[in-house]
Amino acid sequence: MKLLYIDPVGPEYFTEELKSYLHQIRDTNVEIDITPLTRGPATLEFRYYESLVIPDIIHKIIEAEITGYDGVIIGCFYDPGLYAAREVSKIPIIGPGESSMHIAATLGYKFSIIIGRTKWIPIIMDNVVKYGFKEKLSSFKSLELDILEFQKNAKTYETMLSLSKEAIKKDSAEVIILGCTMQYGFYKKLQEELNAPVIDPVISAFQYAQFMVKLKQKFGWGHSKIGSFQCPDIKEIKRWKIPEQYNLKNIWDNIKEGK
Amino acid sequence: MKLLYIDPVGPEYFTEELKSYLHQIRDTNVEIDITPLTRGPATLEFRYYESLVIPDIIHKIIEAEITGYDGVIIGCFYDPGLYAAREVSKIPIIGPGESSMHIAATLGYKFSIIIGRTKWIPIIMDNVVKYGFKEKLSSFKSLELDILEFQKNAKTYETMLSLSKEAIKKDSAEVIILGCTMQYGFYKKLQEELNAPVIDPVISAFQYAQFMVKLKQKFGWGHSKIGSFQCPDIKEIKRWKIPEQYNLKNIWDNIKEGK
Amino acid sequence: MKLLYIDPVGPEYFTEELKSYLHQIRDTNVEIDITPLTRGPATLEFRYYESLVIPDIIHKIIEAEITGYDGVIIGCFYDPGLYAAREVSKIPIIGPGESSMHIAATLGYKFSIIIGRTKWIPIIMDNVVKYGFKEKLSSFKSLELDILEFQKNAKTYETMLSLSKEAIKKDSAEVIILGCTMQYGFYKKLQEELNAPVIDPVISAFQYAQFMVKLKQKFGWGHSKIGSFQCPDIKEIKRWKIPEQYNLKNIWDNIKEGK
Amino acid sequence: MKLLYIDPVGPEYFTEELKSYLHQIRDTNVEIDITPLTRGPATLEFRYYESLVIPDIIHKIIEAEITGYDGVIIGCFYDPGLYAAREVSKIPIIGPGESSMHIAATLGYKFSIIIGRTKWIPIIMDNVVKYGFKEKLSSFKSLELDILEFQKNAKTYETMLSLSKEAIKKDSAEVIILGCTMQYGFYKKLQEELNAPVIDPVISAFQYAQFMVKLKQKFGWGHSKIGSFQCPDIKEIKRWKIPEQYNLKNIWDNIKEGK
Amino acid sequence: MKLLYIDPVGPEYFTEELKSYLHQIRDTNVEIDITPLTRGPATLEFRYYESLVIPDIIHKIIEAEITGYDGVIIGCFYDPGLYAAREVSKIPIIGPGESSMHIAATLGYKFSIIIGRTKWIPIIMDNVVKYGFKEKLSSFKSLELDILEFQKNAKTYETMLSLSKEAIKKDSAEVIILGCTMQYGFYKKLQEELNAPVIDPVISAFQYAQFMVKLKQKFGWGHSKIGSFQCPDIKEIKRWKIPEQYNLKNIWDNIKEGK
Amino acid sequence: MKLLYIDPVGPEYFTEELKSYLHQIRDTNVEIDITPLTRGPATLEFRYYESLVIPDIIHKIIEAEITGYDGVIIGCFYDPGLYAAREVSKIPIIGPGESSMHIAATLGYKFSIIIGRTKWIPIIMDNVVKYGFKEKLSSFKSLELDILEFQKNAKTYETMLSLSKEAIKKDSAEVIILGCTMQYGFYKKLQEELNAPVIDPVISAFQYAQFMVKLKQKFGWGHSKIGSFQCPDIKEIKRWKIPEQYNLKNIWDNIKEGK
Repeated sequence: MKLLYIDPVGPEYFTEELKSYLHQIRDTNVEIDITPLTRGPATLEFRYYESLVIPDIIHKIIEAEITGYDGVIIGCFYDPGLYAAREVSKIPIIGPGESSMHIAATLGYKFSIIIGRTKWIPIIMDNVVKYGFKEKLSSFKSLELDILEFQKNAKTYETMLSLSKEAIKKDSAEVIILGCTMQYGFYKKLQEELNAPVIDPVISAFQYAQFMVKLKQKFGWGHSKIGSFQCPDIKEIKRWKIPEQYNLKNIWDNIKEGK
Repeated sequence: MKLLYIDPVGPEYFTEELKSYLHQIRDTNVEIDITPLTRGPATLEFRYYESLVIPDIIHKIIEAEITGYDGVIIGCFYDPGLYAAREVSKIPIIGPGESSMHIAATLGYKFSIIIGRTKWIPIIMDNVVKYGFKEKLSSFKSLELDILEFQKNAKTYETMLSLSKEAIKKDSAEVIILGCTMQYGFYKKLQEELNAPVIDPVISAFQYAQFMVKLKQKFGWGHSKIGSFQCPDIKEIKRWKIPEQYNLKNIWDNIKEGK
Repeated sequence: MKLLYIDPVGPEYFTEELKSYLHQIRDTNVEIDITPLTRGPATLEFRYYESLVIPDIIHKIIEAEITGYDGVIIGCFYDPGLYAAREVSKIPIIGPGESSMHIAATLGYKFSIIIGRTKWIPIIMDNVVKYGFKEKLSSFKSLELDILEFQKNAKTYETMLSLSKEAIKKDSAEVIILGCTMQYGFYKKLQEELNAPVIDPVISAFQYAQFMVKLKQKFGWGHSKIGSFQCPDIKEIKRWKIPEQYNLKNIWDNIKEGK
Repeated sequence: MKLLYIDPVGPEYFTEELKSYLHQIRDTNVEIDITPLTRGPATLEFRYYESLVIPDIIHKIIEAEITGYDGVIIGCFYDPGLYAAREVSKIPIIGPGESSMHIAATLGYKFSIIIGRTKWIPIIMDNVVKYGFKEKLSSFKSLELDILEFQKNAKTYETMLSLSKEAIKKDSAEVIILGCTMQYGFYKKLQEELNAPVIDPVISAFQYAQFMVKLKQKFGWGHSKIGSFQCPDIKEIKRWKIPEQYNLKNIWDNIKEGK
Repeated sequence: MKLLYIDPVGPEYFTEELKSYLHQIRDTNVEIDITPLTRGPATLEFRYYESLVIPDIIHKIIEAEITGYDGVIIGCFYDPGLYAAREVSKIPIIGPGESSMHIAATLGYKFSIIIGRTKWIPIIMDNVVKYGFKEKLSSFKSLELDILEFQKNAKTYETMLSLSKEAIKKDSAEVIILGCTMQYGFYKKLQEELNAPVIDPVISAFQYAQFMVKLKQKFGWGHSKIGSFQCPDIKEIKRWKIPEQYNLKNIWDNIKEGK
Repeated sequence: MKLLYIDPVGPEYFTEELKSYLHQIRDTNVEIDITPLTRGPATLEFRYYESLVIPDIIHKIIEAEITGYDGVIIGCFYDPGLYAAREVSKIPIIGPGESSMHIAATLGYKFSIIIGRTKWIPIIMDNVVKYGFKEKLSSFKSLELDILEFQKNAKTYETMLSLSKEAIKKDSAEVIILGCTMQYGFYKKLQEELNAPVIDPVISAFQYAQFMVKLKQKFGWGHSKIGSFQCPDIKEIKRWKIPEQYNLKNIWDNIKEGK
């Protein structure tokens, strides 16, 4: 099984630490490639940044499918472009937000999500509702820290811990989700101290991706193509000169024509 | 008051008929410019197409604000990029979907939306929920016709009429929303025959835009910038070289620095 | 355009200050008349008081329609009799509660409502739910002050300000609604200090009324008369001697017979 | 125990048949008086009619409490004035709508309500939601018959039967509620034929009233007076000259002063 | 009328105090028997304990029906086995949880439930949702005391009182439900001090049982047997040797065969 | 990895066909044991049957944990005893209902569930709501066939096919869930013909079990033990003589004492 993890930021914001973390948590029988976008902002905290990177994410996914990847992870908790990517591709496309919530929903009655800023609440809440987990969410708790500082700031862990305790005590959370891929690596120590599962979204995405790829390959259970994830007609895409207009070279040429 | 109506499709798919309709329904004291994007597909039925056009919509809106427009209408019922655009701009940004639902919610107990294909349901439903109108929606009714045929096909009106009657009779709809800007112009005859209000999304967007611009200018009631629509830091945008990376020229230069 | 603003209290509780405020905020091209009821309590905080004034409100509206008004505002945030009045009249009937919530829902992700006493919560909450905004409401915040003191008490503004700050900080409100028409006039200073839109219900009702009247006159988008707002049969009203029984003189005579 | 059943219609629309039905279904140890209003329409199908009768209902209830009644039933499935009446009185006030839904919710997973016209749906639905039973409602089924014909029309029973069967088969209803007090008397034959409970709203109101009165008298479980049903200050009522303004004579004089 | 109150704990955990309380609150014309199970744990706080006692509860109920009881109360606020018991029996089966919530929902806008430990929240919440009262619940408040200490610990009353006050003040509760049958006896003093109804679940269950039995006997309004509470085919039960396998002797023999 | 699949029926109703199906779909590196209960009915269609088998399921799971199984599947779509079993065990406990809904929710916007009889709707619906998938469910479709005939009746497949087509066309389902473990084996042909994923609950449970066991073993993500799935105190279990009372031999002795 060969997976691609897209870190949807510009190349200069992609860190070796994340790469090495990803390699360290992968299963030995799974081949993983990790890549930033060829351009992009440093973080996706705003919808504006999300909008900028989504087309590049989708086109990278189309290429990934042609190249032979079995599944792709969009490495941001907002799951940017998740549903759009599922329209154009036939392989499983996985987001850390969706994966983490599915896993957390099975592990306890309610979960809380640790975010970086209160600004994120409406964006993630829309996903919580879209995925069906409104009644499973106990609360958002905000670190009020800069994403780019998460891995460097000594306060990150302590703040996560105290917010998690508050979520458990006051909001009846039973599971904690770390609501940003840049919160990777903290889960282990946290869950030992809290005595409750803490979901690392990088790991949950990776594991969910393997799970979905296996279901697809073994049982044919891929994203349904008859409604929400129906693919646009490739003849239409060419007739409308989408590749020329958006500088996509020939990425749509290797996809089988028809709907 | 000076408004911009963006038809978020490629220039060759922009029709003189729409333009003349827009001029015909505008208020005499309102200046309106109408423009397609400089590139784009012919329709936005799929999330993939939406994703492609959203960055261009947002950047056109930034330019519009600099140029002196008082408000902008994103001319597609999916309201593509509506919330992202509200982040980066200080003038009112209006979508036909949101406008039509607000108006319909006041006019009756429940409304039904006439769509082009069942494929649209999940996309529009997510908006219905996001805007808060889940309990106000009685049903979707699908024409199963090609958008580009709406204005040409003799069957359009008859199908709209019979679907609307069914929505009223079986689903207790009291108001009908025409769920695509390309369904413009049919409302008048329909509502006479149905004896119930039929919302034309082009008109509702135009009128709602004028309403919101007035509220902004007279009472300072613009999109709240403290949460969902908070603006990214322009220093950050420049430090990350967003304009260079996305070929945006200097559009961010004329915006006042700071958050 | 000629509007009527009904202040649904007894004549001795109607203040010149409100009248002058209304004139000050109106658009120059709109004619406004402002009137209390011919009898009534000083406030409508209780459902009992609401019940007493609703028939008088409705009959005044019927007269207003005959006299030639284009729309009527029922000047209380509870929107007393709003739906009943829409049954019997063909012109737009507007309530400050409904108007304020529609405007606030467009301006931000969630809104909080500043009320006078916790007693009001169930009454307003029933309206929030009825209008479809349950998910848009972040919280109620109660001044615990006497309505008749709002405009006189030096504490009013300071309490509004601190409750609004709390709503923004703790409940993630992005827009504040002043939940009583007697809270008029405070919005401007509040929104400057809060840096977030604050909806004055007297203004929102006036502006929404103008908007709805225009939609009605220009596009025929009035309250749907096929369900919730269907009009009783006037022949039945006369056969049952409603006018004689309720001392209504001949107000039903000038309405066209039939349903 | 002494109960009052108010038939909220004009005196000429009050029938001996209903009176004799009420006497026939009462418990022998319960004293019941039955009375129409001193004025009123023949039916309350419209919110306008409801508005007209609610003040008279409330004032009759205040008198009933003074006279020594232990509880009052407002004899219309819309439960007109139910919450307002609970504000001003200390004895249990019962509505057929609320009673029937509580009983039905205990007897099966979902219930359907047989109504007279689709016009009633929004009014009753608002009550269904207010009482908390949205998820318990399977459907409304409309007889499309005139209320005044229910007891006379030979088709009433047959239509009820076929609508109930449809509700059970298509909407998974397990209990049927007859959604109008004028549908009294049909339940017995219907439930034998359907083999499922059919709630007669006159009976359910009577029985629920006895139940609530007993709970009040024996355990002090009356309507909570600290929020939704808090009573207005009687000093205020007098200071505002409510009795003089609304021709209420001295009904508020015999109520103990204070809140 | 003859009722059975099952205290679903082991015989040694059944107290004379509860028995004497039950006798003290019963109506004089109602015959009540009270019994523990023949085996069982001391409390049912965990789903595991619930699972253990449910089959014994159901079989005791089948016997009770044969013996001639008119209704049975399952004496635990979790209502263990309530819906399963309603499948196999034709007499009304009552739970303190369901009864208390129905009564509280009529008495005020929202109710809070006083529980023993936060562990109970998910179990009771599932019932709140199942019965349809999600919107009626203001909060859970936890005593954090051992059930077996409720009646002995001097702190019980004081903690109940302060939690109730908090529920009223902070969560807008208007009615308090004591969420465990072992909280019996405290309601009276509490409601005097709070000036709001406090529901004792033992009393509410008893009273609701009498109410439901009367409705069943007088009007045939028993649990609907066409869906959720349909009875398994007794022929099937015997063919599958359920009595032999589960040591039930001949309890199924005296039930009329057929579905 | 070693899993146990409990078929919660009596030994004589356990079929070799199911066993061989289970072996055929398992992963080669996973050891699976399959067992019926030592007693039990042939199906669990009624809550009564569920109640009977749940204690035996839980005790078998406790034994399985001691014996060294890494996870257990409760082989019925009702997921009988799922949450109770998660209280008492530390290994992942999996149900086909929960697994199938999680997988389906990721694969499309809405799913429909094919059931055997309409009787099942309330039981499964309660689980749908409990798991958080109310908004993801498009409809139930009922075969109206005897469970024991599913594998033998020639009509099963054809009925599944036509109900699934109806669910897709009329209810906008994008994924089909076969809502009973005895519907195993039909998914492949169905999904080819429907061109949409069809979830076989036996496979989904098996795959989800492997997924959850891996997450538990590799990342410590097991069922949270701090709320809903908290374990009863084993000292209490022994002090209350649960093993002696319920004939459990010494199964609780090998579990580490303490909570």
